[in-house]
This record gives sequence, C-alpha cells and structure tokens, in this order.
Amino acid sequence: MSETKNFTLAVVPGDGIGPEVTTEALKVLDAVAAQHGVTFERTEYDLGAKRWHATGETLPDAELEEIRKHDAILLGAVGDPSVPSGVLERGLLLKLRFTLDHYVNLRPSKIYPSVGSPLADPGTVDFVVVREGTEGPYVGNGGALRVGTPAEIATEVSVNTAYGVERVVRDAFARAQARPRKKLTLVHKNNVLVHAGHLWKRTVDAVASDFPDVAVDYLHVDAATIFLVTDPARFDVIVTDNLFGDIITDLAAAISGGIGLAASGNINPDRTAPSMFEPVHGSAPDIAGQQKADPTAAILSAALLLEHLGLTEAARAIETAVEADIEERTGAARSTAEIGDAIAKRAAG
Amino acid sequence: MSETKNFTLAVVPGDGIGPEVTTEALKVLDAVAAQHGVTFERTEYDLGAKRWHATGETLPDAELEEIRKHDAILLGAVGDPSVPSGVLERGLLLKLRFTLDHYVNLRPSKIYPSVGSPLADPGTVDFVVVREGTEGPYVGNGGALRVGTPAEIATEVSVNTAYGVERVVRDAFARAQARPRKKLTLVHKNNVLVHAGHLWKRTVDAVASDFPDVAVDYLHVDAATIFLVTDPARFDVIVTDNLFGDIITDLAAAISGGIGLAASGNINPDRTAPSMFEPVHGSAPDIAGQQKADPTAAILSAALLLEHLGLTEAARAIETAVEADIEERTGAARSTAEIGDAIAKRAAG
Ligand SMILES: CC(C)[C@H](C(=O)O)[C@@H](O)C(=O)O
Ligand SMILES: CC(C)[C@H](C(=O)O)[C@@H](O)C(=O)O
Repeated sequence: MSETKNFTLAVVPGDGIGPEVTTEALKVLDAVAAQHGVTFERTEYDLGAKRWHATGETLPDAELEEIRKHDAILLGAVGDPSVPSGVLERGLLLKLRFTLDHYVNLRPSKIYPSVGSPLADPGTVDFVVVREGTEGPYVGNGGALRVGTPAEIATEVSVNTAYGVERVVRDAFARAQARPRKKLTLVHKNNVLVHAGHLWKRTVDAVASDFPDVAVDYLHVDAATIFLVTDPARFDVIVTDNLFGDIITDLAAAISGGIGLAASGNINPDRTAPSMFEPVHGSAPDIAGQQKADPTAAILSAALLLEHLGLTEAARAIETAVEADIEERTGAARSTAEIGDAIAKRAAG
Repeated sequence: MSETKNFTLAVVPGDGIGPEVTTEALKVLDAVAAQHGVTFERTEYDLGAKRWHATGETLPDAELEEIRKHDAILLGAVGDPSVPSGVLERGLLLKLRFTLDHYVNLRPSKIYPSVGSPLADPGTVDFVVVREGTEGPYVGNGGALRVGTPAEIATEVSVNTAYGVERVVRDAFARAQARPRKKLTLVHKNNVLVHAGHLWKRTVDAVASDFPDVAVDYLHVDAATIFLVTDPARFDVIVTDNLFGDIITDLAAAISGGIGLAASGNINPDRTAPSMFEPVHGSAPDIAGQQKADPTAAILSAALLLEHLGLTEAARAIETAVEADIEERTGAARSTAEIGDAIAKRAAG
C-alpha cells in the first residue's frame, strides 16, 4: 500500500478572469492527484480588487507570512480597472514575486501543430524564456517630483546586480544544457543600456565557461522581436531581464497559439520560499465572469507546479491531456468550465 | 523661369551597410531633385567605427556644430562589432538625436499588398509610431559600481519630464488628427513603471481635451506586441517612450514586410536644429559591403526628409517609385545598387 503525500497550496484567484481559470486549474490538479498518490490541501487567499476596495489592503505582511508556509502558490491574475493602475500589480503580484525571491520566471513557448499561429510559416517552435524576476526596472526604485505641474519629473531605475544576474544566468545555462539543442540566447539592449547590458553580457560570457557544451548568442531586444516573428524556431533557451522578458513572452505567446496557452512559473530555485505558478495572461476584465476565458494557460501552469514539486509523472499527465485537448479543438466555442472538464477527464485517464 | 532652391545636407553613412544604403538614397534624391527645382549640397561626415579606430573620436563637438548648420541630416547606420557595444551608438547616433533635440522619432509602418508579411492574415496595415526621442531609459543616466566583482551593481535611469512628454504627445495627437482614422494609442507599462507611466497617461488624458475628435486608447507594451501580430490593422498612431518605441518599431517592421522597408525620421518639430533621417535597421555587419542590403528603407527615409523640408511632391515621387518597385518584386535577388537604380529611374519619371 502506497502512502498518500499531502502538499499545501496557497491559492490566489485574484481579479478578472483569474478566479474562473483558477477553478479549472484546481479541478485538473485534483483529477491527477489521486492516481499519483498525492493530495493538495488548499487555502484560498482573498486578495485583489474586491479586497482592496473593502479594506484598502493589497497584501498584508501577516498574510504574506502565512502564504510563505505553503509548498507552492497558484495564482490566477491580478489587476482591475476600478483600482489605480499599479496598486494591485505592485502591491500584490510583484510583492509576492520579490519577497519570495522568484528570481527565475520561467515561460515556455511551443506551437502545437493543430493550433493556428498568426504566423504563416512558423516552423517547429519549442523554446523557453528565463525571465529574471527580482531586479531590473521592476524594482520599484523610481519616483516623481512636482507631480501634476509642468515641471514634473518622473524616474524609473533599473537595478541590476552581479548577484542577481549570475544566479538567473546559471539557471538558464543549466536548463539549456538539459535540452537537446543546448542553445542559450541572451536578450538585452547593451548598445544603449550599457551599464546593465554589459553586466549581463559579461556574466553570460563568464558563466559560459562552466557550460562548454552550450552554444551562446546575443540579440538586442529589438532584433529579438524580429526573429520571434520571422524565425521563432531559432530559439531554444532565452535569458533576459525582467522588463524585456515581460515584453517578449507576450509576443512569444502571441505567435504560438495565443495568450490562452501560455503558462509560467515564478520559481525560487533555492527553495527558500514557495514558488508561484500563474498564466502569462492578465486579468482580462473585459471578458471576466463570462466563462469565455481559456483556462489552458492556468492548467499548464499547474503542470509546472507539479513539476516543481517533483511530481513529474503527474505533470506529464496534465500536459498530455492538454495536448490531446488542443489537437481536437475544432474552433467551436466552449466555456471555461467545459475546457477544464474536458482536460480534467483526460488527465484522470 | 523658376529658381532652383538649394538645400544643404549633412550625410553620415556610418557603419556596416550604412554607406551602401546611403549611396542609393542619395542617388534617388538626386534623381528627383532636378524636376522639383531643388539641389542638395552634401557634406559627408566620416564618423563611425573607422574613424573611432583611427582617432578615438565618435562625434567631436566641432563637427557636431558644423552638422548643425545644415538643413537636414541623412544617416545610414551606426554600430560595429569591432567597437565596444554602446560606444558608437551612444557617442554618435544618440548624441545626434539628443543634442539636436529630435524629440519625435517618426516610424511609419505599412504592409504593401505584394510584399509578403510573416503574418498569415495581417489585414490592412498603415500606422505610424511616434517614438519619444530625447528621454526615457535612453538618457544615459545610469552607472555601475564595483564593476567586475561579485558585488557589482549597475543601474539605468529612465528620466521622463512633463515638458518632454507633453511635446511629443501633442505632436502625436496632431498627426492622429490629420489622418482619416484619427486614433491614438498610448503604449507604456503604467501598471509597473508607475511614476513614468502615470505621467504619460495623465499627459495623454490632459492633451486629449484639445483634440476632441481623436479617439484615444491605452495598451501595456506587452499587450501591444500581441496586437501587433494578431491585429496590426487596429493601430493608427501610436505614441510611446524611447525604449518601448525602439522595441515595437522593430516588431512593426518585421510584420510589415521586413526591416528592409522601415524608414524613420528623427524630427525636431520646432526646427531649432536639423532633423535626421535614417532607416530603422541597424548596421548589419554580417552582410556589409556585399551589396546584399535592401536600400529601400534608406530611400524612404530620404522621402521623409523631403517631406520635412516641405518638398511634398518630391517626397510623393519617391514613395510612388518605391511602391511601384515593390509591387514588381519577384523575389529574384538584386544588388543594393540595382534596387537603387530601379527606384531612381522610376522616381525621375
Ligand atoms: C500584471 C503585470 C504586473 C505582469 C508583469 O508585468 O510582470 C504581467 O504582465 C506578467 O507578465 O506576468
Ligand atoms: C542602434 C540603436 C542605438 C538604435 C536605437 O536603439 O534607437 C536603433 O535600434 C534604432 O532603433 O534606431
């Protein structure tokens, strides 16, 4: 008789379509849990726009400390037009990523043969972006003077450290080494952002000597967007800073079947705090509560969560179920729950 | 008898394919000059990698002051792998843009029916990006400490002022108002870069009241990359900051027939200094000197130059010639000079 292992999950459904897609991700997690000998004990955290309107809170420290005690975090989406832009993003989502030291923001892209790409001839696309998650222009190190006057000045400071860059670059090299093509592309803008850019470039060049079998190249971020539409098959592993990673992973999602399929993991590779899994898409307030959102990205994020917890077979079961579901998509509209049901059924085998 | 008007041009061929494409742009300028009653008196400036290797100079102040005396500047491309990344870009190209106060970096995108787009179904694409040219993360306001040690820290500061944002936003509104669709999209990332982002957003909202017939919307830069591949026809005029503008205009070029066709103007709308016209593409050192570069982007940049000098008919003659040339492209390879010859011949009528 095998023992059942229990994992604790903190669940943050969030705003907009977040709750809907999270429901389906949890449904699919439950569907695979039993046959892989695990259970997931969930605690839901009511954070986001509603909470902020009611209490003015985004993420109180006490709740953050509770969340920290879990094995992993599943998040839906954050952001709502009724809340000033940035309040929830900075106060909730980025606070989680920064405090829990999610320095590897992992975003795989793959074109499924049966899913249309807006590209006429995309080729075989299967790459992963390792986006730095705790530095860059996202640090919140900016300010404004004389706001609302003709003399206003607003700054945003991108902070990059050898410590922060090296650890994410090492992670990306290790991922590249474990893949068949063993190729790493650094994306930055080192011809303009010379201080940050040269730190990134020097770090990649230095770490490369520990990974002699990994081929390395460099692209400016503007050129990278060109290749993402003209030759996305050239990419294997991309490593880049927080802001460039934000931009190119949305583009990557767009060329590979849409933002409805793009999963992500905010990973703390040192496991000093729980990692967090969420779809790349935002809260899409325009379609919220209408069962129109595709939960596949959230479901694939749950697969990344399983993978991170070492439940590789269970992760594969979800991925296989998603692939089978995708292969049979006819274009007929299904509700969020219908897609979740179909994938859960397949994943349960 | 009509008089011939003479304009003075400072020409900076630059690096890589810069000289080749500049030769063709000048050829086409000459071809249209005569019948439009103008001449162009050119002074060529030997700036770029060769000069830097020989003298260590990128753009001495004396030469900058000479260049400033011209009616306009035509630039090829800047940057070479033999020079540390950033030296020529910051010391030459950005020094020109910043010192000559090119606050409107104008980058039109258009899909010509006969030119293949990597998009399967792009629709009718005809928009223009107004990229801010004198602020943002391009100001060079960053630094590094303890370089080369494990304690290194590198920063890049994005500087945004009400003065700088309002003037480019007003320019973009005026351009939108003059176009049939009268639509302006602000692209930023105001949910993360809250100080700069809110300054941009507030400025657009305020200036909008002076342009009541222009429809305004807002997109985060990540979402904008999605729309650029899934629905580029939705855009009319985009206004955005220096770095986001850099990124999305390369993407815009990629979806609309390639970087070989993308022209740009670095414009000083107040005419306190000459404006500068250059292709969006870089110096492409890998194909330099091989007559492989498409000079069309440089030629279309010359058309923007004519337009800026008030020579609208001459500008149209070049655009019409380019369109006719493009419509007849068969895919057979032509040299840089052959393309220039063909367009010059057509433009001469
Ligand atoms: C919602 C927003 C703060 C977030 C980001 O910019 O990181 C999102 O775009 C993402 O990519 O996860
Ligand atoms: C060469 C480089 C400095 C430049 C820029 O980043 O502005 C180029 O990419 C452009 O878009 O004109």
